[in-house]
Amino acid sequence: MKLTVCSSVLLLLLTFSFCHGGNIFVFPAEGSHWINMDILLQALHSRGHNITILRSTRSWYIKANASYYNALSMPVEKSIDETFITNLMKAGVQFVLGTTPWLSSINILTKMVDIITYLHSAVCELVSAVLDDAALMKTLEDTKFDLVLSDPCWGGGVILAKYMKLPLVYYVRWQIGEDAHFGIAPSPLSYIPVTGSGFTDRMTFLQRVKNMILYLVTYIQNDVISGRLYQPTCAKYLGPDCDFNQIKTDADIWLMRTDFVFDYPRPTMPNVVYIGGFQCKPAKPLPEHLEEFVQSSGEHGVVIMPMGTFVSELPDDMANGIAAALAKLPQKVIWRYKGKRPASVGNNTLVVDWMPQNDLLGHPKIKLFVAHGGTNGVHEAIYHGVPVAGLPMYFDQYDNLLRLQERGGAKIVSISTVDKDDSFLEAMQEVLTDPSYRENMQRLSRLHRDQPVEPMDKALFWIEFVMRHKGAAHLKAQSYNMSWFTYHSVDVVLFLTAAVLLVLLTSFMFIRCLFRALCKRKVKRE
Amino acid sequence: MKLTVCSSVLLLLLTFSFCHGGNIFVFPAEGSHWINMDILLQALHSRGHNITILRSTRSWYIKANASYYNALSMPVEKSIDETFITNLMKAGVQFVLGTTPWLSSINILTKMVDIITYLHSAVCELVSAVLDDAALMKTLEDTKFDLVLSDPCWGGGVILAKYMKLPLVYYVRWQIGEDAHFGIAPSPLSYIPVTGSGFTDRMTFLQRVKNMILYLVTYIQNDVISGRLYQPTCAKYLGPDCDFNQIKTDADIWLMRTDFVFDYPRPTMPNVVYIGGFQCKPAKPLPEHLEEFVQSSGEHGVVIMPMGTFVSELPDDMANGIAAALAKLPQKVIWRYKGKRPASVGNNTLVVDWMPQNDLLGHPKIKLFVAHGGTNGVHEAIYHGVPVAGLPMYFDQYDNLLRLQERGGAKIVSISTVDKDDSFLEAMQEVLTDPSYRENMQRLSRLHRDQPVEPMDKALFWIEFVMRHKGAAHLKAQSYNMSWFTYHSVDVVLFLTAAVLLVLLTSFMFIRCLFRALCKRKVKRE
Repeated sequence: MKLTVCSSVLLLLLTFSFCHGGNIFVFPAEGSHWINMDILLQALHSRGHNITILRSTRSWYIKANASYYNALSMPVEKSIDETFITNLMKAGVQFVLGTTPWLSSINILTKMVDIITYLHSAVCELVSAVLDDAALMKTLEDTKFDLVLSDPCWGGGVILAKYMKLPLVYYVRWQIGEDAHFGIAPSPLSYIPVTGSGFTDRMTFLQRVKNMILYLVTYIQNDVISGRLYQPTCAKYLGPDCDFNQIKTDADIWLMRTDFVFDYPRPTMPNVVYIGGFQCKPAKPLPEHLEEFVQSSGEHGVVIMPMGTFVSELPDDMANGIAAALAKLPQKVIWRYKGKRPASVGNNTLVVDWMPQNDLLGHPKIKLFVAHGGTNGVHEAIYHGVPVAGLPMYFDQYDNLLRLQERGGAKIVSISTVDKDDSFLEAMQEVLTDPSYRENMQRLSRLHRDQPVEPMDKALFWIEFVMRHKGAAHLKAQSYNMSWFTYHSVDVVLFLTAAVLLVLLTSFMFIRCLFRALCKRKVKRE
Repeated sequence: MKLTVCSSVLLLLLTFSFCHGGNIFVFPAEGSHWINMDILLQALHSRGHNITILRSTRSWYIKANASYYNALSMPVEKSIDETFITNLMKAGVQFVLGTTPWLSSINILTKMVDIITYLHSAVCELVSAVLDDAALMKTLEDTKFDLVLSDPCWGGGVILAKYMKLPLVYYVRWQIGEDAHFGIAPSPLSYIPVTGSGFTDRMTFLQRVKNMILYLVTYIQNDVISGRLYQPTCAKYLGPDCDFNQIKTDADIWLMRTDFVFDYPRPTMPNVVYIGGFQCKPAKPLPEHLEEFVQSSGEHGVVIMPMGTFVSELPDDMANGIAAALAKLPQKVIWRYKGKRPASVGNNTLVVDWMPQNDLLGHPKIKLFVAHGGTNGVHEAIYHGVPVAGLPMYFDQYDNLLRLQERGGAKIVSISTVDKDDSFLEAMQEVLTDPSYRENMQRLSRLHRDQPVEPMDKALFWIEFVMRHKGAAHLKAQSYNMSWFTYHSVDVVLFLTAAVLLVLLTSFMFIRCLFRALCKRKVKRE
């Protein structure tokens, strides 16, 4: 029996941890997903719950030590560490910005597929590391967890939850690689754009055709990942009959990180709880030097430009183009950029390593938010009602910004032309001078804030609900354990069609026989 | 210009009414629908809103005078009055109880169809009476209503709301004649039983076939009612292009009188708010004589049997059968029955004209609720956690009780054999003696009460939300203005199929030509 050092420490922590509430086992995902989940975990901890998170010893964002959780750190071979992510993102940025010739583009694309495969293999390895460690599993069993909280963009949480026979709560926007709604709720492709399509909920015929093709491609892609990577792990630990595609939709509650002020209204399910913007909170005062800088902007106000978790560096031309455009604004600018300082940075621009984004967005002097379109930033823009100039790069960023643009609160420009023409500067100037952008964002802010329960309180309520009632079976529709064939009534439609055809055929045969008999009799008589 | 007496009085009331809040125009439905809507209106009034309801001068349940609303009473020819309803229900009861020979059954069925047609014609007449009265319409316009609140089991509210260009809130469970969910949310027939089917959300193949046939019948029936009755009214007042089937789904918020503790979990939409059981409240003390009677039951406790809005009389045999069964119980019984007192009423039974149902259900001495299966009663049983013996008759009553039976909280018996065998008595005895029935109802009660916002508060919040934001357009999915053809992507699927076939055909032709050319060359060479 192998009891790792990490799990011994965990045992100690679990035994002595002071806990009013429940025991929560967390299977998080890395990067920006973790940033917000961390906020949720702090809130859960402050309500007296005992939190244990699973991470690899070489984890990127998820720290081994925190006052509000116990970390179960597993040594694994494959890991989503900083080097891995940085390389991936550099390649990704180059690909999206179109700065590589097409042969190396194909090379990068192949690399990307390899990287995604690596990522999900790493998740499976992490799951196996836990499940293969009998002593650790005994410790975990003894801890008597109340539920598993998991981000299903990584498929490991559900396998662990099913193995430990625990209720499961998803903290979710994506499942493996697609909008999680596609996994749980009916999703008519006629008005639900697939992520990456760049379409809205009002599509032309050709857009709808493209949307369906894109859906099929995404579906196949996810099916391959599920089938090749998660299914073997699932079968090994949960028995050969276990179907990963079925169990992955079998969570008690889906805490969905979106809402319908931001997203297009669409069908949903009783166990989906919308917590979009749960991380937003009123602004705190700024650090002194920042407040001073902001105040120095006078009546023009300030533009902020944080560029997300993944972008630390841009190609020189591009960084220069951005800096030059920002320099031409009468506003002061706060730009978060970790790369080499471009020569064209203006006197109005403060380049920083990090900024208190939420506190700045809530500051009355902030006139414009130059956003890359990550979900977190977009929700914060809505919460504080700040208009947006969008410079999307990859993933869902364009689609996120498009939702704001559709509602009149943002203007999107292509980052690839930022060093070639004035479109970025013009877009910023338009959003700064046309009051409708701010008015629309303020309207969205009012709608978002006008909820009977705050998104964070909703999240806490439903997690504790699952603890109190040991699940939420009464909210899970029967659809989750039906085959597509039965679900879509294919058998029933075939049966009814056959029945109708049979009746028609029999009637036809009968009439023909009757007709012939009559004719014969007539002939005989003649 | 014709200004009716009623509308003059209304004008006066509207002008002088003291109002902190908004102006709400209400288009209610009769009978049990009204009983609960009335509770909602009282709550709205107590929050300072000014309420105007539309009724016919010969209305059955909706009173002309109330302290908390202004009634706009329109004199119309056709009306859903007491005589009309009583006759309908008598015929209905006889039909369901199977006490009429089959020829008169057909007669009754034809009558029922006539009656339903009459009912919806009466609604259309009421709508026309308002819209044709120009002076009244001027008054209504001047009142500056904030929204229309309507029960869409009658199709008049939406026509009035669209005519007055006002936001619309539905207080809803049925739309015309079907579960309102079918009108707004995707409803896979593979696990969503059609009302009247008597199926659950787990159906066998044959049940699914029957479910689909029943759905088609219901669909056609509603389409005929919409097309023959509402469409002409709609076209007359809203223009010839107006499609009633489209506008009827175009409400801002649907306050759905159900929840998923009671109903089977199923797809829903962002603008559907579940307020099932909103009318339930903690029990108040009973009137002295009732409390005395209840206390006299000792350890055995009390059985209550209120028989709903529609049943005042049963055939003699049946009433006698029920009374005899109740007499054999060791419990005390409170029976609400307006018909002739049966000879077999036992000493343990108190026959009453009316009972404080909610206060009784919340009394600790109540051991069993003999319910006919109306939605109101079923929700009250869940709220108070009282087990049920079900005697369903018509409409959705069997289906409602089935939901409780499926969850182990009720036992259903057929009312038609109540005077022929002991099944009713046995069912009551089983529910009284097997503790699992009460435990299950108590569990449902805990689940129902464990919500982040009370159902009534939810209803009030969303009505006021619609006032604050002049609608809830951001929660309305695009589906409501798409044809079924586009919605189901029929055109896209046909196009893609044609494209694939074309590619296959072209490839085939090309290969054939190539093959022939090769063969020819070979022949030539030979």
